[in-house]
Amino acid sequence: MQNSRSKPCSCPSLKLREVASMYFTMVAAFLVILVVALQGSAPRESDFPYKVPLDPQGLLELSWNVSYPEQAVHFQLLIRELHFGLLFGMSDRGEFENADLAVLWSDGHNSYFGDAWSDAKGQLHMDSQQDYQLLGARRAPEGLYLLFRRAFSTCDPKDYLIEDGTVHLIYGILEKPVHSLQAINISALPGGLQRVQLLKPNISIPELPSDMKSMEITAPDVVIPSQETTYWCYMAELPEGFPKHHIIMYEPVVTAGNEALVHHMEVFQCTAQFDSFPHYNGPCDSKMKPDRLNYCRHVLAAWAMGAQAFYYPEEAGLAFGGPGSSRYLRLEIHYHNPLVFKGRRDSSGIRLYYTATLRPYDAGIMELGLVYSPVMAIPPGEHSFVLTGYCTDKCTQLALPAAGIRIFASQLHTHLAGRKVVTVLSRDGRERQVVNADRHYSPHFQEIRMLKEVVAVLPGDELITTCTYNTEDRSRATVGGFGILEEMCVNYVHYYPQTQLELCKSAVDPGYLHRYFSLVNRFNDEEICMCPQVSVPQQFYSIPWNTFNRDVLKSLYGFAPISMHCNKSSAVRFPGEWEKQPLPRITKRLREPIPRCPPALEPQPAAPVPLNLGQLQRD
Amino acid sequence: MQNSRSKPCSCPSLKLREVASMYFTMVAAFLVILVVALQGSAPRESDFPYKVPLDPQGLLELSWNVSYPEQAVHFQLLIRELHFGLLFGMSDRGEFENADLAVLWSDGHNSYFGDAWSDAKGQLHMDSQQDYQLLGARRAPEGLYLLFRRAFSTCDPKDYLIEDGTVHLIYGILEKPVHSLQAINISALPGGLQRVQLLKPNISIPELPSDMKSMEITAPDVVIPSQETTYWCYMAELPEGFPKHHIIMYEPVVTAGNEALVHHMEVFQCTAQFDSFPHYNGPCDSKMKPDRLNYCRHVLAAWAMGAQAFYYPEEAGLAFGGPGSSRYLRLEIHYHNPLVFKGRRDSSGIRLYYTATLRPYDAGIMELGLVYSPVMAIPPGEHSFVLTGYCTDKCTQLALPAAGIRIFASQLHTHLAGRKVVTVLSRDGRERQVVNADRHYSPHFQEIRMLKEVVAVLPGDELITTCTYNTEDRSRATVGGFGILEEMCVNYVHYYPQTQLELCKSAVDPGYLHRYFSLVNRFNDEEICMCPQVSVPQQFYSIPWNTFNRDVLKSLYGFAPISMHCNKSSAVRFPGEWEKQPLPRITKRLREPIPRCPPALEPQPAAPVPLNLGQLQRD
Repeated sequence: MQNSRSKPCSCPSLKLREVASMYFTMVAAFLVILVVALQGSAPRESDFPYKVPLDPQGLLELSWNVSYPEQAVHFQLLIRELHFGLLFGMSDRGEFENADLAVLWSDGHNSYFGDAWSDAKGQLHMDSQQDYQLLGARRAPEGLYLLFRRAFSTCDPKDYLIEDGTVHLIYGILEKPVHSLQAINISALPGGLQRVQLLKPNISIPELPSDMKSMEITAPDVVIPSQETTYWCYMAELPEGFPKHHIIMYEPVVTAGNEALVHHMEVFQCTAQFDSFPHYNGPCDSKMKPDRLNYCRHVLAAWAMGAQAFYYPEEAGLAFGGPGSSRYLRLEIHYHNPLVFKGRRDSSGIRLYYTATLRPYDAGIMELGLVYSPVMAIPPGEHSFVLTGYCTDKCTQLALPAAGIRIFASQLHTHLAGRKVVTVLSRDGRERQVVNADRHYSPHFQEIRMLKEVVAVLPGDELITTCTYNTEDRSRATVGGFGILEEMCVNYVHYYPQTQLELCKSAVDPGYLHRYFSLVNRFNDEEICMCPQVSVPQQFYSIPWNTFNRDVLKSLYGFAPISMHCNKSSAVRFPGEWEKQPLPRITKRLREPIPRCPPALEPQPAAPVPLNLGQLQRD
Repeated sequence: MQNSRSKPCSCPSLKLREVASMYFTMVAAFLVILVVALQGSAPRESDFPYKVPLDPQGLLELSWNVSYPEQAVHFQLLIRELHFGLLFGMSDRGEFENADLAVLWSDGHNSYFGDAWSDAKGQLHMDSQQDYQLLGARRAPEGLYLLFRRAFSTCDPKDYLIEDGTVHLIYGILEKPVHSLQAINISALPGGLQRVQLLKPNISIPELPSDMKSMEITAPDVVIPSQETTYWCYMAELPEGFPKHHIIMYEPVVTAGNEALVHHMEVFQCTAQFDSFPHYNGPCDSKMKPDRLNYCRHVLAAWAMGAQAFYYPEEAGLAFGGPGSSRYLRLEIHYHNPLVFKGRRDSSGIRLYYTATLRPYDAGIMELGLVYSPVMAIPPGEHSFVLTGYCTDKCTQLALPAAGIRIFASQLHTHLAGRKVVTVLSRDGRERQVVNADRHYSPHFQEIRMLKEVVAVLPGDELITTCTYNTEDRSRATVGGFGILEEMCVNYVHYYPQTQLELCKSAVDPGYLHRYFSLVNRFNDEEICMCPQVSVPQQFYSIPWNTFNRDVLKSLYGFAPISMHCNKSSAVRFPGEWEKQPLPRITKRLREPIPRCPPALEPQPAAPVPLNLGQLQRD
């Protein structure tokens, strides 16, 4: 902290680093002029509609916007306390090694900006192609603003490809002067990680009705526990006789100052099967929590850090209130308090906007993916093991209206081993469209995401959800199930018009799995108990995981028929034969998108850009 | 044919095509000047040491040289009868579709040269990057010479990557004027295919002794049968009492005019177990051929089209003559006569150069890869199924001298389904060096190839040979064996000093294969007869080839222990336990080489280069 009083920005004048060629000199000169030119014009709030704190104290604040025509992101980074520089960047899963970084560094006299990458040991190297493009810098009372731009795809193999879904942002703080970028090892710096959906969809906001009302479901001045992770549960209640309304929008209400602590929030509606629910206000894992709260699982609203307001499409709203609907709501807030602040008070929550003028369609939520069953298992020690859940043509044929449904949002869900989740729509055996894909999925960042494009699903279509798991840290098999160390593969899709189909999921046929156990048993001369009283998890736990047994399990999942859950609710199936169904056959796969490399705003030399931070101090 | 009398080259003067920008104009002008400049200087024979006829009539003759420093091939193409142009190029396996082509075409007035590619339908498109670089053109009494250059690797995704091993050259003849390159569909043109090893190794020729003698083993004025394919067998005999000599070199003797018909030739020595062999001169598949000729299989020399003389390394020679060695030799010539010429006479063969002054080491031949056993099988309908044969550390430890052996040449061998063959040397579980690799391997082009680098193999090293097969045209499994519709995976390596180890090959443990049959049986509820009297091929033929059974067979071959043949001769094993041996474990694989893209000789526009063929006619 005391370093912040030294003078990192004391260079008296604009000074160009020695550059080798006239070309570089010209480009660098142009850039410096650009920097100076932009210093005067303070960007408006609306220029950067998305905002997230990077660190738990909120000393670093990132705002950004997305230009789909330019295929680029513009960043505004507010550094409240500048020491000797800052690293900001992206990496596959938030690791500091093999990261793609924008670096601001100072040797105590001069300051520079450059695009760099960290190797497998965290050591920094200058990128041969400078793709974080500095657009400006501005000193303000609250701190230093850095403005820069990055194309989604740069075609520099050292660069991160910005894709839909989760992006792991990282930062590191330079507390001492450094003499060159190459002298920095990010693994040795204080820093951290923040997950965001960088490529927010570019959706126009539907018109809101004049009779719209709002209601806040917020925590009642909770003292945030002084521990890293807390899930707080608070029960709220709709007025008696509250008639059916449509929720048409909701937004977060975050207590000022707690922006870096409130990680995510959800509002659940309780089941109508009980007339009343106990009032409760406390940690969700407390022994004092009444068991009945486990019956409050129907999602009404969900928000995670970095997300904005959620709007329903113009023709649809989420029904709540009225007969057959519980008056009881449960608010769940995940407080993430890694610095273990004590006595911090919070009244965050979600503000629901609703209307009594019902829209044409009720919105619904449908669960795609895998049944929560131990028959779907992941061997231990796998880097990327894939499980696939199917919603078959037979089920959509039976359960969807002739005009089909329209999916407008999606929430992906796995437990701790989940690394990627992708749902694809297939018609007549051909993959047609990605419904939602997150190739950097984190179980710690489960948002409801608006889709960039609404997906129309017709009767007879197939929805195929693929989850990739990492079990390198585990010594026994991970089976499907509800436990946190068991796994799920789910995509909750939000759609309209609502249908009776609540669940369209699959699992491998148990008979075929039994054959697998038997096969493994005989092949390896192992004594795996096949006695009927031994559970499926126990049988998985006793498999010796050699390459053959792993390979054959993959082959089994890619071949064996499935048991379909084509259900009206979690227990009631649609009529029909759903056992031993054939696996959907895909004759044509979607191509992986080939990244475009749009031309940079200006050609960028492989040399740092000098920054006149001394001049900035005069502001 | 009569088209050849029309005037394709009648353009009166150099005429530039309209080009869009000054840049293109400048470059094109430079090139035309280059073309003209080179017309005067006739290249010497030694400039293009390698030569091969492209068509069965020998109307197209390709000569080339290889520059390893430049990573480029220089081609000289002699066109004896020019119609309205010619296509020359390369493709994966000689197909006309998806090929990379240099095209010379004329609209009847003007002629052009360009780099093009053919799509999946054979339609031609101009390459955006022009990588066949025209260096010159020259008219001579025998025809038109075109000189052009091509880098091994261009990094244009439409271009063929020139690699070690077989290259499939293709040609097509334009018999009518065409108005643009885009108007050409190569699939509709007359043309053909020629296989060559384009990247000949750059080996210095060892000094030859003054007492060197030579002997020709040639066909005795054979009338080539008027059928497409003939394997001709001719028995020759060494003089009685011929003492031990070293063959130190051999070269082809091809009857003038038959260059395009003599496809390959081999000289085999007969076994010493019989005192004499019948004289025979006739087709190898004739019923008249004495059975005893099947005992003449020890290769002394092998040549294939496009190959040059074969030199043994200075320290070694191939022993023949003397006690314990048969006096009888069998010459086998493959005549390839697709145009069914009648009455063509041939006295081709191989000239052996040998010395009585024995060199320090006898050279030997060792067989690596898979045992000829039906336990190694390929399911039907596979695009690229891989089988792997191992020469284990245990065998090399036992059989090789402490100083190791040096492999200097290699002949890869499979039957008709073979598509790729690669042998890699592994030491301490790490792949160290490619011994020989042919990623465009053709069973119709089996040369003995000198290695670019001699490979030292030490006791304890592993030699792993991987063969890739295509069985898309087959309806039942292909098992290992001697039959032409059975498969082999062999690398005959030529090395010194000779050891007792003749065969270092493997096959999957038969017990594990039996478990596989049993497993497939139970898993699929199929009635595959497991009775002991049913042969392994019969069991493979009765498998229903679903994806599970295919996958599990792959897993089996990648997991099950092996039976090693570490043999002194095909029937005598070295002492030791060779059954149920563990598969060699590879902890580090060789990286695929990343193609370098050396800068082109000159920047090339994406526009055809005009050629002044009218001027050429004046020569």
